[in-house]
Amino acid sequence: MKFNQYKELFEEFMTRKLPKVFPQNLYEPYHYILQLDAKRIRPAMMMASHECFAPLNDDVMTAALAIELFHNFSLMHDDIMDKSETRRGFPTVHIKYSENSAILSGDALLILSYQLLEKIENPIHFKEIYKVYNKTAIEICIGQQLDMNFESELTVTEPEYLMMIEHKTAVLLACSMQIGAILADAPEQDKKAMYEFGINVGMAFQIQDDLLDTFGESAKVGKVIGGDICNNKKTLLYIRALANAHATHKELLQQWSQINTFNKDKVQEVTRIFVDSGSKTYCIAKRDEYYQKAVSNIESLSISDDLKKGLKEFANLAVDRLK
Amino acid sequence: MKFNQYKELFEEFMTRKLPKVFPQNLYEPYHYILQLDAKRIRPAMMMASHECFAPLNDDVMTAALAIELFHNFSLMHDDIMDKSETRRGFPTVHIKYSENSAILSGDALLILSYQLLEKIENPIHFKEIYKVYNKTAIEICIGQQLDMNFESELTVTEPEYLMMIEHKTAVLLACSMQIGAILADAPEQDKKAMYEFGINVGMAFQIQDDLLDTFGESAKVGKVIGGDICNNKKTLLYIRALANAHATHKELLQQWSQINTFNKDKVQEVTRIFVDSGSKTYCIAKRDEYYQKAVSNIESLSISDDLKKGLKEFANLAVDRLK
Repeated sequence: MKFNQYKELFEEFMTRKLPKVFPQNLYEPYHYILQLDAKRIRPAMMMASHECFAPLNDDVMTAALAIELFHNFSLMHDDIMDKSETRRGFPTVHIKYSENSAILSGDALLILSYQLLEKIENPIHFKEIYKVYNKTAIEICIGQQLDMNFESELTVTEPEYLMMIEHKTAVLLACSMQIGAILADAPEQDKKAMYEFGINVGMAFQIQDDLLDTFGESAKVGKVIGGDICNNKKTLLYIRALANAHATHKELLQQWSQINTFNKDKVQEVTRIFVDSGSKTYCIAKRDEYYQKAVSNIESLSISDDLKKGLKEFANLAVDRLK
Repeated sequence: MKFNQYKELFEEFMTRKLPKVFPQNLYEPYHYILQLDAKRIRPAMMMASHECFAPLNDDVMTAALAIELFHNFSLMHDDIMDKSETRRGFPTVHIKYSENSAILSGDALLILSYQLLEKIENPIHFKEIYKVYNKTAIEICIGQQLDMNFESELTVTEPEYLMMIEHKTAVLLACSMQIGAILADAPEQDKKAMYEFGINVGMAFQIQDDLLDTFGESAKVGKVIGGDICNNKKTLLYIRALANAHATHKELLQQWSQINTFNKDKVQEVTRIFVDSGSKTYCIAKRDEYYQKAVSNIESLSISDDLKKGLKEFANLAVDRLK
């Protein structure tokens, strides 16, 4: 099945099965964020992983809905913490409703995602899923905390950065892939390979996301180019440039970091340093390294070449930012 | 076992088993709130319920820890939403650390409480507990939302108020009692009676809490008397007085509700209306009605009279505010 078919199938399921709670103002904020146009990467990956071993069924759709609910809970809370005012071109929940709504409705969404897992009847499936789900959920909190900590830290190392994006982004993709495989009774080593594939795709995706924020085309990326530079975000591009640029460039980077409003000259000059210091090239190589690892994970699976081809498209989409 | 022995035993267990996460600033805020002196009502009730049918074991201690973690997660988030600056005489988490810390560390605490439940090996116990846990967790979100909604609503009816306190307070006590019974393989009707006991104790507790806020002694209650009156809280005392007072008193209540800073005259006059309108008497009767229901729930249990006596002490403590 193609990526867009998964998305369509998933959204049709979500429309029917999204849990409703009263009062209205507890339900509305999470319904709002869930109906915004989204790529549904995590459900699609879970469904794709499952389909490599068994046809789709209600259990995998339910687990996919749980993952999407979890993801949107974390978006609602992260948006408060990061003071983000828009998401996918629309006001974030705490802006449209209130901060209290975004906190409480987010809490409800997290609990509802756990409640959905009740529906998985097979106790062996359930227990296995429950463990990876909890582990992943905690790791995502850790990722968000590390990301917030980076804001006030003067230097962030490359391993620290990689650990942060692994926790904040990659583990939920990995968890999705693994749950799909668990529910399809895939062989042990395939479950592990699916998890690793999710990690590597997630890492490639995040590095590509950082690259596009500086080197993408505004229309394609759907946001203003240079946002990370203006906000002094400690991306791999920045970390690598600061570590490897020559003294004059380092000084310039540090000078520009005093300014954190939108500034065209800053974007232009810092972008140039990212290129001249070799940081851009390094990040592309790093992204491709993860991409290649993801491809190896696919190769190791005990599935047909046709199915492998399908998964490879996911890896390609990730590097092209899963549009 | 006596209430304080449960508390002691529980706290010793918590000290050893509280899950740790990194980084430090994700862990510290929830460790801080959990080490504040607290009554540990919910763990104690779970342990007491369990001990009516079987000796304490690791499973019930783990579930008790999960409940206490859940409770403190909800305190951390409620304190942000309610803009509460102190709790048990100490700064609340969002005041001591930051709002972001209270959001994220609260999220982590909720997830860790779910993760603790993994340790319950018996799949039948687990599934039963998981269902009541999820249901209760959602109900608590609903209770908090209703409570917040009351602030901007002009009139709140008695059934609306009772529904709110049932969701916000009583269900977690009920859930604690029921989980204790589930883990001890109590007969079906006893599990239900334990749940109902928790509901009725919770309702009596909350109405008593409201009564003490107006009619208690400051030193005993541990807070300034008249706080609810000053904040125009729609307690049962207020709702009943507004519904039943004669026209002049109704008008006075409405006039005073325009002022929401601390005002001695307001406290004095509104307190007098609570008495003269018969609202105080009504609330005491309502509290005692729930207390009596809790006693009947105990009577219905298939346990020894000695054990029944022990549970009755819990009900008494509740009406005396579980000090």
